[in-house]
Amino acid sequence: MDPRILALHKAAAARDGMIGLAGGLPAGELVPRDALAAALAEVSAARGPEDALQYGWPEGDAELRAWIAGRLAARGASIDPERVIVTAGAQQALALVGKALGGARIAVGDATYPAAICAFEAAGAVVVERGGDAAYAITGASNPHGVERVDRAALLGGESVIVADEAYAELRFDGRTPRPLCADAPDRTWHIGTISKTLCPGLRVGWLVPPPGAHQAVLELKHAADLQTASLSQAALARLLGTIDYDDVVARARRFYAERCARLIEALRRYLPEAAFVEPEGGFSIWVETGEGGDDIALLEAAIEEGVVFDPGSAFRPGAGARGGDTERPLALRLSYSNAAPELYVEGARRLGRALAVHRRRTPRAA
Amino acid sequence: MDPRILALHKAAAARDGMIGLAGGLPAGELVPRDALAAALAEVSAARGPEDALQYGWPEGDAELRAWIAGRLAARGASIDPERVIVTAGAQQALALVGKALGGARIAVGDATYPAAICAFEAAGAVVVERGGDAAYAITGASNPHGVERVDRAALLGGESVIVADEAYAELRFDGRTPRPLCADAPDRTWHIGTISKTLCPGLRVGWLVPPPGAHQAVLELKHAADLQTASLSQAALARLLGTIDYDDVVARARRFYAERCARLIEALRRYLPEAAFVEPEGGFSIWVETGEGGDDIALLEAAIEEGVVFDPGSAFRPGAGARGGDTERPLALRLSYSNAAPELYVEGARRLGRALAVHRRRTPRAA
Repeated sequence: MDPRILALHKAAAARDGMIGLAGGLPAGELVPRDALAAALAEVSAARGPEDALQYGWPEGDAELRAWIAGRLAARGASIDPERVIVTAGAQQALALVGKALGGARIAVGDATYPAAICAFEAAGAVVVERGGDAAYAITGASNPHGVERVDRAALLGGESVIVADEAYAELRFDGRTPRPLCADAPDRTWHIGTISKTLCPGLRVGWLVPPPGAHQAVLELKHAADLQTASLSQAALARLLGTIDYDDVVARARRFYAERCARLIEALRRYLPEAAFVEPEGGFSIWVETGEGGDDIALLEAAIEEGVVFDPGSAFRPGAGARGGDTERPLALRLSYSNAAPELYVEGARRLGRALAVHRRRTPRAA
Repeated sequence: MDPRILALHKAAAARDGMIGLAGGLPAGELVPRDALAAALAEVSAARGPEDALQYGWPEGDAELRAWIAGRLAARGASIDPERVIVTAGAQQALALVGKALGGARIAVGDATYPAAICAFEAAGAVVVERGGDAAYAITGASNPHGVERVDRAALLGGESVIVADEAYAELRFDGRTPRPLCADAPDRTWHIGTISKTLCPGLRVGWLVPPPGAHQAVLELKHAADLQTASLSQAALARLLGTIDYDDVVARARRFYAERCARLIEALRRYLPEAAFVEPEGGFSIWVETGEGGDDIALLEAAIEEGVVFDPGSAFRPGAGARGGDTERPLALRLSYSNAAPELYVEGARRLGRALAVHRRRTPRAA
């Protein structure tokens, strides 16, 4: 990802009154804060072999791995908890997959989660739009498009390695969480999950279930990377999951984000009529195309001047486009409704409209 | 590291009555548990821009980075807090260094921290005993030897890249924390620190200060690896450090481990007279050689049968020895006093003596 994007986002975050439509940040109001605080208090007080402040094994907390396996089993994928490796968020799972697949060519489609591209490329894999030795599939609701884009028949009928990222799988607004791909292609699917979108990202807990034959090698990579995921995060999460109804938390999140999504769509239709988009089926954001060209990093700069921040589409593109303002493709923006309050959407859409107008004046070829 | 060692350690940990002299685990009784619990409660309750349960920037918590820079400054190394990258323990810092140094040859001496070897090799670096493009230096009290082994004059007079690991630097029993190498070779020193040995490892917080010219590239590697270190761990630690006297915590730890070290030395001298060792100047463990040969993983198996567990010396050796029972060198054992209660040391030494006798009978060439 172009380092200018992160620099612009950081500068924007430090400014008062900015409307934040960037990032895949969950809503702070959905975190079961009291239950988590109670879980943290309990596990941090415990000494002895269960000490959450001590080192743990590389694969992670046994109770948490059992919970992960249990939820997969309920969805049709029978996974031995011993196969689950707890990771520092889904991001570390992606980095481990990239590393384990060596110099493989990983197909990601025309736009995907930017940090997956970073993780794969940093690990030596080659990211391509289609074809490749492996396919990266964000199931249920894709990022950035917010719709199901996984061709299950093609994936399951083929022979490619499958990297299945379930970060948003349970956050489809219709609640139709797809069957895990590892249930039907167990020997070639790398299954990735996380609680970052449904509970909170600040614990940095995700997981990876590699194909059985790759488990030992991946566990050694995990150990080399950071020894283990934070014991405190894992123990507190395991305790929390024993005290809340996770299905209920997820169902509430689905309703909450569906409502925010509808509100942002309404604001865009009314105040940013040049925005073309497909209505999301789930997830955190809307992928907007404006039908014009130009440098989307320059557009981001103009937007920040107007007081609104978004994710430029080029960051989501595989290949060279991911490294700078992409002037070859139509301008695209990912607008996230997940973390910004709905009462800001109308003003956010207006500011985006003004930024687009400024951008057109500055770069006449954009129009 | 030979995967058999981890498997044996896990099996041993699950058995009752085992005396644990393996691992670099700090003592659970030294953790300022109440203060940490209070810090966790405070930061997990806070919403808004300071939300410890939300995503944060890749480089980490600004307050924590200021504290790290402040302590380095007090020791003669003036470091802009912007240069500090918070990592998932010192282990992730080592992995990032290995990756950033590309295929460099990193000299580690005849025995070193096993997971550093794993981190460097997994990242594509080549680990050698001496020579090399970079030198890995565990300052103050080396791991596994527990004595200062860093030749500062040679390092500072040379031109090699320096990877300075300060995990145990403040835990010299005499309190003479060495001057940070980055103070005197700022452009070629990769500085690594952690609170895992002085406070607790369960938060997984360490840090890396790369040479200025490498900062941006390393920050991108950190982002690709796991986006950021757990916000909750960082925020709670920053809060904790504002409420405790860290120098006092470290001074107490020094006295505590010095006492345990003396007790283990006493037990070894009396009940394991064949053990040859240099008295540690600090750290968590004693490096013991027995003057005989044989396979140290076989010795570990015999020891676990007797009810005591240690770290086999081969794990600390660069090169092929790190991958199996090393029968070329004299048998060596790392015995840690940091986490085991002193009242177990006499029985631990006796059990080790019995294991050595069994081992000699089983492998006559060992004698």
